[in-house]
Amino acid sequence: MADEVKVFRTWSSPFPLRVIWALKLKGVEFETIYEDLSNKSPLLLQYNPIYKKVPVLVHNGKVICESLLILEYIEETWKQTPLLPVDPYQQANARFWAKFGDDKVSQSIMWGVFLKEGKEQEEGIPAALENLKYLEDELRGKKFFGGETIGLADVALGWLAYYLDIFEEIAGLKLLDEEKFPSMAAWKQEFANAPIIHENWPDRDRLVDKFVATRKANLGKEAPK
Amino acid sequence: MADEVKVFRTWSSPFPLRVIWALKLKGVEFETIYEDLSNKSPLLLQYNPIYKKVPVLVHNGKVICESLLILEYIEETWKQTPLLPVDPYQQANARFWAKFGDDKVSQSIMWGVFLKEGKEQEEGIPAALENLKYLEDELRGKKFFGGETIGLADVALGWLAYYLDIFEEIAGLKLLDEEKFPSMAAWKQEFANAPIIHENWPDRDRLVDKFVATRKANLGKEAPK
Repeated sequence: MADEVKVFRTWSSPFPLRVIWALKLKGVEFETIYEDLSNKSPLLLQYNPIYKKVPVLVHNGKVICESLLILEYIEETWKQTPLLPVDPYQQANARFWAKFGDDKVSQSIMWGVFLKEGKEQEEGIPAALENLKYLEDELRGKKFFGGETIGLADVALGWLAYYLDIFEEIAGLKLLDEEKFPSMAAWKQEFANAPIIHENWPDRDRLVDKFVATRKANLGKEAPK
Repeated sequence: MADEVKVFRTWSSPFPLRVIWALKLKGVEFETIYEDLSNKSPLLLQYNPIYKKVPVLVHNGKVICESLLILEYIEETWKQTPLLPVDPYQQANARFWAKFGDDKVSQSIMWGVFLKEGKEQEEGIPAALENLKYLEDELRGKKFFGGETIGLADVALGWLAYYLDIFEEIAGLKLLDEEKFPSMAAWKQEFANAPIIHENWPDRDRLVDKFVATRKANLGKEAPK
């Protein structure tokens, strides 16, 4: 019997893209269910009662939540085109940068800079730049975080390669200066234009409209706990 | 050549205990370095420049940070006494509850209840109880989160079995009511008294003194980002 694989996503959120990319990189076929987060489906709430978020992966009836954990499940279930190296230390390293992206990079960029203005925004910029600098240092001399090929950390941090430009444009500032972050700038190009990654970005103009509205609705708010 | 394994910890923090337990459950010998977080050693800052936290594991010169990632590394490196099941779905489940513990349970108990008082504390109690209820439901009919034996989620959530009592005593309230949470109450006894776990709890009276001071210093503050 063929595998039944379903992915719950929205058209705009970067987190489900991780799952879409991982499945497509591995050549796993799946069905996509588009959610509207302002009117969540009963199925989404049933499958992810705690976080009530996308992505959710359903594989032959088994439900897996949380994008980084879904990546681990995909990696363990479909061994082709590995996203993690074999060496446990290199695995720990990939997981570290993926987690760092969620703990620090996205927090400091979204809630520290993009959703702030004026003095509050100015005060948030150094932390965002410091976090990008850690990524720059990790990436130096490598094409991808995973080395020569796209790995778990690339997939986890991949939103930066497309969404950061949009956030910068809307907020009217530049964080990822190409002269200060040459390795990250090269990675951004390389990753954003890689086969499979490139084909699955949402429409840029629609994202700009969406995030203009997101910014307006959340400006000055604190990050949710 | 024998493995050289070092663990940086404090005497009181529950996070390094995860690493201590995992290594001891697997029978891996290691050296312990006790840190004073009010005066961090140059070596800790060198090994963990981003988070500047314990635990840090150093294995034959390779440095691994972040307690849940260290558990994954230990599991991958020393295969004896597995902490994760073989089935990818069951693995995802164990990782989910471990992450839920850090995202929700410890946040809601520490920053929502223990470090609050009066009306703010009252308002924090429902979320803490809701999170404990999710654990109760997951545990029902099982001895450990890992089934018949201690697994990754038990090790990750294990602090609850010893520290929660102390927090309740200091704050003068009861969250884990045995009648409302019979499975969690049974787990708490079972886990806290299991061989290896039991031998490695810090001294209770010293912990009470320490967390009385922690509470005094942080009462009413917001959780760090």
